[in-house]
Amino acid sequence: MAVYTQVNDKALDEFLQNYTIGYATSLKGIAEGVENSNYFLETSGGKFILTLYERRVSAKDLPYFLDLMAFTASKGLPAAGVRSQKSGKRLGTLAGRPAAIIDFLPGLSTHTPSGVHAKAAARILGKFHQVTEDFSAKRSNPLSLSGWKKMAGQIGQDADKCSPKLSLLIDEELNYLATHWPKNIRRGTTHSDLFPDNILFQGDTVSGIIDFYFASDDFLAYDLAVMINSWCFGESQQINHDHVEALIQGYEDQNGLPDTEKQVLPLLMRGSALRFLLTRLYDWLNQQQNALVKVKDPMDYVRILDCHRHRKTLSDYGL
Amino acid sequence: MAVYTQVNDKALDEFLQNYTIGYATSLKGIAEGVENSNYFLETSGGKFILTLYERRVSAKDLPYFLDLMAFTASKGLPAAGVRSQKSGKRLGTLAGRPAAIIDFLPGLSTHTPSGVHAKAAARILGKFHQVTEDFSAKRSNPLSLSGWKKMAGQIGQDADKCSPKLSLLIDEELNYLATHWPKNIRRGTTHSDLFPDNILFQGDTVSGIIDFYFASDDFLAYDLAVMINSWCFGESQQINHDHVEALIQGYEDQNGLPDTEKQVLPLLMRGSALRFLLTRLYDWLNQQQNALVKVKDPMDYVRILDCHRHRKTLSDYGL
Repeated sequence: MAVYTQVNDKALDEFLQNYTIGYATSLKGIAEGVENSNYFLETSGGKFILTLYERRVSAKDLPYFLDLMAFTASKGLPAAGVRSQKSGKRLGTLAGRPAAIIDFLPGLSTHTPSGVHAKAAARILGKFHQVTEDFSAKRSNPLSLSGWKKMAGQIGQDADKCSPKLSLLIDEELNYLATHWPKNIRRGTTHSDLFPDNILFQGDTVSGIIDFYFASDDFLAYDLAVMINSWCFGESQQINHDHVEALIQGYEDQNGLPDTEKQVLPLLMRGSALRFLLTRLYDWLNQQQNALVKVKDPMDYVRILDCHRHRKTLSDYGL
Repeated sequence: MAVYTQVNDKALDEFLQNYTIGYATSLKGIAEGVENSNYFLETSGGKFILTLYERRVSAKDLPYFLDLMAFTASKGLPAAGVRSQKSGKRLGTLAGRPAAIIDFLPGLSTHTPSGVHAKAAARILGKFHQVTEDFSAKRSNPLSLSGWKKMAGQIGQDADKCSPKLSLLIDEELNYLATHWPKNIRRGTTHSDLFPDNILFQGDTVSGIIDFYFASDDFLAYDLAVMINSWCFGESQQINHDHVEALIQGYEDQNGLPDTEKQVLPLLMRGSALRFLLTRLYDWLNQQQNALVKVKDPMDYVRILDCHRHRKTLSDYGL
């Protein structure tokens, strides 16, 4: 959570002249998004999020992300629309960074999701998968199996600085997943990062899906696996079976969940646990002094992974 | 700029039940304020800033700051009003921290103030000094001469880690200021931190004065000296004489500036330069790994101090 790039008031005025949303009446840097600088921007024309893309997000992928957000919003889902410049472009430049203006969505993310929240969120994921069947752009997931191998190779034995024998665990997991990773289940556009942070609620109703910057093409059920890992383990890292059930039911109600997907869901959860373990570990090992971002604990995901290593089928999750 | 304390959505709901501003419709941590955690809070009743006070702000001073903000707003200045709880209290507790809800002020701070901005800001300072004549609470300034001595004592020779012979410069300054510091000029309630960050504008009009957490009783002209140091030195740390003139004129138009104050203004600027040098140096020496706050460069204020050491009267500033 940080604002990496400062926006000068004069530069903002000039930037806004490319749009038809009026002049700025307020600008506050917001402490959200570890990848980008985000501002709450109010203009005479409405409320927006101004995002400046920092180096961690690949510039070539930005049109994909923005097009996907705009597409999803246009289909009536509570995703943030993207404002186009007068020229028609969604992406501009501000303070030397690629920048976009996104509609402000009401609602609050929940730190202690209930089963009702989980079910509603999973239904929205199902809807997202349905509407994006017609989204034509593609982006392969750099954080799937081959990406994990690459990242694990970069980390190497340094993993053991975080926890003894962690590098061994990672190797074992990579080998297991490479052998068992599914091939013939439904693929489509995935959000790939639908943590509770990234769903806004008004009461029990989903009012926003945000942070599309890991979206890609992958297995639909992988998206559900990411959700289970991030919605069903509390601070104690104990799995909440009721929440697992609520997520699966919510998704299935909306978009179905064939037996072939149910069978591999535990495996996809292992994969997703390894994915977040690896990226957190990488950030933990590469954290910089004076970094503006609080690095998340990789060990949370070691515990989640460990939970899945002891389970093979959904019945092992009490379902 | 940081959010140190996370606010749980449920805890927020409970906290808001103490007020009459409705239920939360949005909450975003904002990257402002190095001392506190600030959130942009929207409720069914309006837009607010939710502030959680962290350890650096002394809890016993909070009623003073909040009363001053509320008093200033009640006198028609563009300061943020403070919401009272149903019980009448302005200060509550949220997430284990003292917390308050403050009205959201429109406007943007300017990174490149013009002379017109400077003059308008100084007029508001003059008005602030006028209306707070009737503010009865008092707080002695912990960051005046005796506070600087104490802080310089804590820093000691470590200053030289930042720049060779800096400890010597600090000692010289402290001695000089102790001998020459004025005694018989106007005193009153001072903001003491009126940097461009802390003034919001809509066009050329001041729409907000924010961040009252260094307010105290001190020399009125010291407040103007803080402004000159923070508004008149660009990134090059070259003094902008036009801005100095605009600030002095704006202030004088509004609240007068007797010759006795004009005479000591260069000295007050030296004092203010030393004050910010010392606090920045302290933060620079005590910065923590993983700190969420970008530490400001103490050397900026060494250069500002150096500028003032070569000047004695306002005519040396081209006035």
